[in-house]
Amino acid sequence: MTKLSKRISGINEAGGDGWDLYVRARDMAAAGEPVIQLTIGEHDIRTDPAILDAMHRAAKAGNTGYTFGPGLPPLRAAIAERIAARTGTPTGPENILVVTGGQAGLFAALTLACDPGDVALHIDPYYATYPGTIRSTSVIPRAVIAHPEDGFEPRAEAVEAAADGARALLLNSPNNPTGAVYSEATLTALGEVARARDLWIISDEVYDSQVWEGRHLSPRALPDLTDRTLAVGSMSKSHAMTGSRVGWVCGPAEAIEAMTHLATCTTYGLPGFIQEAALHALKAGDDFEAGIAEPFARRRRIALDLLSRQQAVAAAPPRGGMYVMIDIRPTGLSGTAFAEALLDEERIAVMPGESFGTGASGHIRIAMTVADAAFADAMTRLLAFAARRAAAPAT
Amino acid sequence: MTKLSKRISGINEAGGDGWDLYVRARDMAAAGEPVIQLTIGEHDIRTDPAILDAMHRAAKAGNTGYTFGPGLPPLRAAIAERIAARTGTPTGPENILVVTGGQAGLFAALTLACDPGDVALHIDPYYATYPGTIRSTSVIPRAVIAHPEDGFEPRAEAVEAAADGARALLLNSPNNPTGAVYSEATLTALGEVARARDLWIISDEVYDSQVWEGRHLSPRALPDLTDRTLAVGSMSKSHAMTGSRVGWVCGPAEAIEAMTHLATCTTYGLPGFIQEAALHALKAGDDFEAGIAEPFARRRRIALDLLSRQQAVAAAPPRGGMYVMIDIRPTGLSGTAFAEALLDEERIAVMPGESFGTGASGHIRIAMTVADAAFADAMTRLLAFAARRAAAPAT
Repeated sequence: MTKLSKRISGINEAGGDGWDLYVRARDMAAAGEPVIQLTIGEHDIRTDPAILDAMHRAAKAGNTGYTFGPGLPPLRAAIAERIAARTGTPTGPENILVVTGGQAGLFAALTLACDPGDVALHIDPYYATYPGTIRSTSVIPRAVIAHPEDGFEPRAEAVEAAADGARALLLNSPNNPTGAVYSEATLTALGEVARARDLWIISDEVYDSQVWEGRHLSPRALPDLTDRTLAVGSMSKSHAMTGSRVGWVCGPAEAIEAMTHLATCTTYGLPGFIQEAALHALKAGDDFEAGIAEPFARRRRIALDLLSRQQAVAAAPPRGGMYVMIDIRPTGLSGTAFAEALLDEERIAVMPGESFGTGASGHIRIAMTVADAAFADAMTRLLAFAARRAAAPAT
Repeated sequence: MTKLSKRISGINEAGGDGWDLYVRARDMAAAGEPVIQLTIGEHDIRTDPAILDAMHRAAKAGNTGYTFGPGLPPLRAAIAERIAARTGTPTGPENILVVTGGQAGLFAALTLACDPGDVALHIDPYYATYPGTIRSTSVIPRAVIAHPEDGFEPRAEAVEAAADGARALLLNSPNNPTGAVYSEATLTALGEVARARDLWIISDEVYDSQVWEGRHLSPRALPDLTDRTLAVGSMSKSHAMTGSRVGWVCGPAEAIEAMTHLATCTTYGLPGFIQEAALHALKAGDDFEAGIAEPFARRRRIALDLLSRQQAVAAAPPRGGMYVMIDIRPTGLSGTAFAEALLDEERIAVMPGESFGTGASGHIRIAMTVADAAFADAMTRLLAFAARRAAAPAT
């Protein structure tokens, strides 16, 4: 075979993409094992039938042709309205590019901000796909560690110290995997670095509908950051539409126009019937989104209650998102070893912290994505497993 | 605003992407003008309702979650079967990556073949989006002219002469815009250059179901080219599913695996319900595809018949595809001037040859995408317009 480009061979450095345990658990489940999947951020409900009916109506009405460009005008307008209402920042359709999911939004934003060989800063712990996504755009990822003792909020001076050669700073609040919701003080300090170093802020806000403590603040809403922020959103988490692949990038109109040219080259736009379904879903409003988020609030309370009744391991309460991260270092195990053993012994699949970087090593990430009773049962067994291991820690 | 990357600013060199006339015609139509659109390759029928019903059934049955990876196994298998049957080349599911349309396939193949700063060769006349697509992957496009006197088939020696620094050769047969269907001799000679220069062949075969003379030959089917060819396919043209965005790349298993990592970073896979609709459509078989292609065969005969009755302008009969390209140089007008004047005076929109490169200047491309009677009427008026201009050519 003719040789592959260096950039494509290098997407998954060291061969792994962090999803090994998920894949092993999925394969076990497919082989008939009774595995409880608490790995990926997939709701335990399916997309609402009313949304699917709206999609079908649009398709049957003939919206099955090319839709290239930045997105259907009413959808761009509805997304802009949602953002303006939630962030207080004036936002119009010209600020919105509709893309095939938040992932495509990250790819577009990185391509816009950085040329090949530039550096993009990201915070560690991170969503497992970030470093590969940065590398896939021929950009060099550089991690800045956020520490448990800071509630996993990054320190501006650490970002500043890492900023040589950087063109972009990738942030994610509410954060996956840590559940951190960045404070105004943190974002303001990070914004000062971005201004001083002339960085684009790429703000991954796909968990903006899942905030349990404090409030979501978009960097785009802070003074003087609107023109250097590309906010990435998605309907995957907020509307339980993971498989429909609907996302957006919100930014300066000129940036949206440039990314529209990129979208023509990468995907040629989203299916029109999916865009109409997305519009239908957005029109269902905040109550609908609150209903999608509610189970995670309930299960978070279940998890925190069970955690409070034991001493073996500890967790900072997640302030947002659909995950809870537990510090399992008292067991003497790495996150990976803990997750592998838990899967083997209890048939419970959770993500090793190491999948999310150095800063989350010795942790596991639990997705709160099964029904309450099953979740409570899995948490109880997981904590008993941890207690046994902590009582006789690996050496 | 913070500055944009050089690569994203450079996607549309000189500001245009070749689609200006299409956009102007579309805007005129939206404003109520009775414009006949013979610009883009969009069928005059919509996607078959049975395919849309299959999509809806899949969605309602719960296939609305994440589907990341190379594509649903049965869909990969069905695509591999179609390719094996049509090309005679052994092809398995491991050779198939499902992507969001042929455009995404081109983007993935270019990213796999070339690193930033490498050269990708392409043939001119070309599909309008090629140079921008190459640039969007931070690769340098280099055009090799194919001449009308060669039936727009490229000469291997011209490709060889342009190959310094190249990693990929992008081919498209059946060709858009010229209607050329490359002969075995042409492809064999091009394959020798690819081997000598160790190039990937990226073979855009999205018009493989629309062949009117000769037969479609994939470079992947030629001896010793299987391991250096990435064949890009799509269901847009063959199944009238332009808006569903279903395409594939077919290539060596190791290349497919590498592009799967890229797909995780760019789109996170295709909607599962769309993949099931695509599978349903493929199962409808060759007869279904022949039915979708048939109107273009009919209208091609209409066009050639009308052309044979006049002397003002000439066209080589398209051997494949849904377009007819006319040499309008006897009018003394450029393709752009002709198309603009035709739109203004006759409300008929066709694409200027210049949108497709230097080699198609002085030509226009007519998409055979309206019902037969309307098509015949538009062709008649277009040829009368050309005759008037040729009788009094612009100086």
